[in-house]
Amino acid sequence: MSRRYLNLISLPDALATMRRAFPPGNHVETVPLHMAVGRVTAGPLYAECSVPWADIATFDGYAVRSEDTLGAGDQRPLPLADYAPINTGEVLPPSFDAVVMVEDTWDEDGSLWIRKSAAPWQHVRHAGEDIRAGELVLPKGHRIRPFDTGALATYGITRLKVRSVRVGIIPTGNDLVPLGVVPAPGQTVETNTLMADAYLTRMGATCRRYGITPDSPDLIQRALEDAMAENDLVILSAGSSAGSRDFSRDAVGALGEIIFHGIAVRPGKPVLLARIGGKPVLGMPGYPVAAQTILREVVGSLLAWWGLSPESGEELDVRLSRKLASDLGFDEFIPVSVGRVGGTCWATPHPRGGGIQMAVVRANGYIHVPAAREGIGAGEEVRVRLTVPPERIARTLICTGVRYPALNELANCLSDAGYMLHCCNASTIGSVLALRAKACHTASICIPDTGTAWNDLVLRYLPGVDLLRVQVTRTELGIASRESLDAGTVESLRFINRPKGSSARIFLDAWLEGRGVDTGRLTGYEHEVRTPEAVTNAVSSGFADAGVCPAGAARAAGLRFTPLGHESCDLLVREDLAGVVGVADLIRAARSPEFQEQLRSLERHRAGRAGDKSL
Amino acid sequence: MSRRYLNLISLPDALATMRRAFPPGNHVETVPLHMAVGRVTAGPLYAECSVPWADIATFDGYAVRSEDTLGAGDQRPLPLADYAPINTGEVLPPSFDAVVMVEDTWDEDGSLWIRKSAAPWQHVRHAGEDIRAGELVLPKGHRIRPFDTGALATYGITRLKVRSVRVGIIPTGNDLVPLGVVPAPGQTVETNTLMADAYLTRMGATCRRYGITPDSPDLIQRALEDAMAENDLVILSAGSSAGSRDFSRDAVGALGEIIFHGIAVRPGKPVLLARIGGKPVLGMPGYPVAAQTILREVVGSLLAWWGLSPESGEELDVRLSRKLASDLGFDEFIPVSVGRVGGTCWATPHPRGGGIQMAVVRANGYIHVPAAREGIGAGEEVRVRLTVPPERIARTLICTGVRYPALNELANCLSDAGYMLHCCNASTIGSVLALRAKACHTASICIPDTGTAWNDLVLRYLPGVDLLRVQVTRTELGIASRESLDAGTVESLRFINRPKGSSARIFLDAWLEGRGVDTGRLTGYEHEVRTPEAVTNAVSSGFADAGVCPAGAARAAGLRFTPLGHESCDLLVREDLAGVVGVADLIRAARSPEFQEQLRSLERHRAGRAGDKSL
Repeated sequence: MSRRYLNLISLPDALATMRRAFPPGNHVETVPLHMAVGRVTAGPLYAECSVPWADIATFDGYAVRSEDTLGAGDQRPLPLADYAPINTGEVLPPSFDAVVMVEDTWDEDGSLWIRKSAAPWQHVRHAGEDIRAGELVLPKGHRIRPFDTGALATYGITRLKVRSVRVGIIPTGNDLVPLGVVPAPGQTVETNTLMADAYLTRMGATCRRYGITPDSPDLIQRALEDAMAENDLVILSAGSSAGSRDFSRDAVGALGEIIFHGIAVRPGKPVLLARIGGKPVLGMPGYPVAAQTILREVVGSLLAWWGLSPESGEELDVRLSRKLASDLGFDEFIPVSVGRVGGTCWATPHPRGGGIQMAVVRANGYIHVPAAREGIGAGEEVRVRLTVPPERIARTLICTGVRYPALNELANCLSDAGYMLHCCNASTIGSVLALRAKACHTASICIPDTGTAWNDLVLRYLPGVDLLRVQVTRTELGIASRESLDAGTVESLRFINRPKGSSARIFLDAWLEGRGVDTGRLTGYEHEVRTPEAVTNAVSSGFADAGVCPAGAARAAGLRFTPLGHESCDLLVREDLAGVVGVADLIRAARSPEFQEQLRSLERHRAGRAGDKSL
Repeated sequence: MSRRYLNLISLPDALATMRRAFPPGNHVETVPLHMAVGRVTAGPLYAECSVPWADIATFDGYAVRSEDTLGAGDQRPLPLADYAPINTGEVLPPSFDAVVMVEDTWDEDGSLWIRKSAAPWQHVRHAGEDIRAGELVLPKGHRIRPFDTGALATYGITRLKVRSVRVGIIPTGNDLVPLGVVPAPGQTVETNTLMADAYLTRMGATCRRYGITPDSPDLIQRALEDAMAENDLVILSAGSSAGSRDFSRDAVGALGEIIFHGIAVRPGKPVLLARIGGKPVLGMPGYPVAAQTILREVVGSLLAWWGLSPESGEELDVRLSRKLASDLGFDEFIPVSVGRVGGTCWATPHPRGGGIQMAVVRANGYIHVPAAREGIGAGEEVRVRLTVPPERIARTLICTGVRYPALNELANCLSDAGYMLHCCNASTIGSVLALRAKACHTASICIPDTGTAWNDLVLRYLPGVDLLRVQVTRTELGIASRESLDAGTVESLRFINRPKGSSARIFLDAWLEGRGVDTGRLTGYEHEVRTPEAVTNAVSSGFADAGVCPAGAARAAGLRFTPLGHESCDLLVREDLAGVVGVADLIRAARSPEFQEQLRSLERHRAGRAGDKSL
């Protein structure tokens, strides 16, 4: 263990070292034009022919000499002796310098008559008007756009040299199973190479994924040798276990020189760069979000250095909606959701961690906290790199608070209206404060239906703010237990608890208080879990005897249920933002009978499934 | 002819009519995950499994009960009786609620000893921490990003339903030959369907290109019937001749109902929309830039209406560097190059016209002049839609003036330094005025080496502006003729001329004045052509007897040459912008010996080729 990360280097140092070690080479391939979109030209492209190739007519009519038409007019029609019929696109015969449209002429006594004089070069496209043979069409380093293909084809270019980097990607690790196989306990589906392939292909690289190699230095070494021969860059994608990273290091060390191992970046620390036969080998971490960070910041940076042109996201300066802590000495990348509330763009962070892929899926961008910063304060300006097209931000609705399941359905409803609902986790107080700062469009809260909760949890933090409260769902909570609660004293029960501020905790505290129980002496009271399922799991497995959860969860787990009260899951909207586009749609959708009916039908569906399960 | 465009409808009306006629249908296909990047989800996607699927250890060590560890400390090591060895990623056995790292324990007397108490759930990843089975991963209407694939795979989703529109594209026209065939005179290479395929595929459509169908209503009708059966939308891509558009109309009219024919949009007017068997058929104009406009504004709009998510460019508000006229009643789209000069972003228009594809290739965006506007004034703010990533704008250098060939080579040199040199055509005065307004980084001018030209053409328009003048090339100009000029009087010669303000014109005028010739009586003096090649072509073909061109052009055409003087092709830079990043690189590159040597070697190469040709 000890040899790992002894010498973490900084991200800027790592990138500089990598560039010095691997200067841009001559990575070029020739592709047919229809495969060239998104690729980057390896050299300048010159027109093979002039377009048009000669002076041509732009209308059907007659080629004439403009000087012969001088003086023609409505009152003075002129006959032309010398002319030639010509169709659109045909070449103007020598000695003629204009075209008259067929509609402007008539035939009489064997002559062509006109009523208008023709200007020199009238209705003529000059040779080379679009481009001349040998002229530059595209300089080198140009990323080919769809419409460029039409121009290149017109100018006689049907195959072209583009920059090319062949990337081999080898997944390693005994714990990995391929996509499509259902993992046994302790196994992980190998998904990082799929993601690497998708990402690097979009950057213009040509990727090849190899089969899963077990944790054996010999086998990894053999796979590496094969891949090095076929590619310009090889990525070893480690399984999530520590072991496979060590085996990668051993295999790489045996074949070549390790340049660095470990970058002070989060997520993404255990990254390795080596040189084998002059080519780079990169050991990518196994946690998926760590792998993404390394693909973007390290591999992407190398490919850009080698001349590929990444489809990078747009940058936006926004305000941070809540404080973010970050360790000094680490470059940190944090997924955020950006939305425009009133006139200000706000970024709200999602949870960090190499294993939380959903944070990246839910986010529409990320921020980079440089190693020299210890964190960023609430309300401070930060730069976000977007992972969606920037025009989406205006149609993004930020919902801060508890991500209760009905919000999923609401997100689907809003997607029909063209809005993206982004739910960012926060405690009830956190979401109410975001509402106060106008840093979100809506706050999603779950509070118990007691006389005081609404005042205690919401109103006291929002003095003078007019609120709209939309009830989305209402859920019955109570105590789930294996045995009847009457069987013994409350003090003899082992509890499983929910966090402070949750409705379940508030109901439990009130129930215990009603029975005069000292919570400090209650076994398991300090044992907090984050989900209702964790409560029912703990009770079902015998780890605890009782815990508070929704009636539905207790039913689904086949547990007894002692009702305590109801919880209301609401959306709160500031009245001064209720008329804003998007927010109005949100309120309308949440109140619509269709949405409520959809929730009820899902509820019935779930109850039905739970019923099946208990059979 | 007369029946065409009788009822031009406005672009907004055309789009509204199209949307009403073709509401979004249920266009869905199922694709494997690795083919899903860039596609749009047809419905919500829910996780098939929880991740992690159970509570798992995040380190190698021992599963323990946190309550058993209370009170352990450096001064008070504790032995544990009940524990279980566990590795990273393994499931926490029931009844344990924490993991202690192997480094923090030791074995003694058959017991496991610890020196630190463990917090509940220490080193444990909870089941469903990333996502819980049945939770929403992506709502419908989401365009799948590369990193989304990893998450979807992890959550058990290996195939998914995406929005799908099958587009059939039929090229029609007797004048068309397929890509790769060298066109005979009057023929055109069929490139519009290649471009349509590339563009619509990037939007997420599934395109099928059919073979070229000749101008025959019967054959077009048959091709249409086949394509309608296999696709959701069919595009008839007309050849550039008027005839093939009429045949399309007849064929479409015979099979279904024509909804409109002709939109008041430039370029792009002759577009046709029809309904056959409930499906849309679109007749696309033949001129390539007109076809692009219709693909973007009409077909793209329909596909977006049907739920595909276009990769549309970023919008930017910029100032227009020169006046643009536009006809009332037409929505017009004009390619522009955008660059940031000093602190201001400027857009400089490129030439318009359905056949000028290079204008679009050279541009990095376009502006839309709505039908109600008669034009836009110089300096006015306009909105540009970019066709390159926005971060490129900061590295774009705008060169306004004469596009002399050496600028191509300069563009290649600058591409190595990461800069895009955009050359926008303008007269000498136009480019000098752009420099005065700081609307370009550099002006490219070609002026005769006479005593007065520099003052007359440049300095008088830039009073008080300090200039850097970089000579890029110097060319000898003179009169090209078939016979010796001494053969007759000057008045008996038929001339071909270049436009006012050109060096060739200035030299010719001075030469004629020296001989006391009245230009008003000179045959062909008013006959202006735009390129040196047009001069030598006219003289070679006998259309004219003499004209001014560079020595090299006359030599290449095998004509006699009477020298008149030299022309200097320069770059002008304002001294107050010379230090700006990019501009400094431009000056350095233009003055570098490498660049000058490259120009000389190209010159030798061209001379060699011209020599071959004359053999």
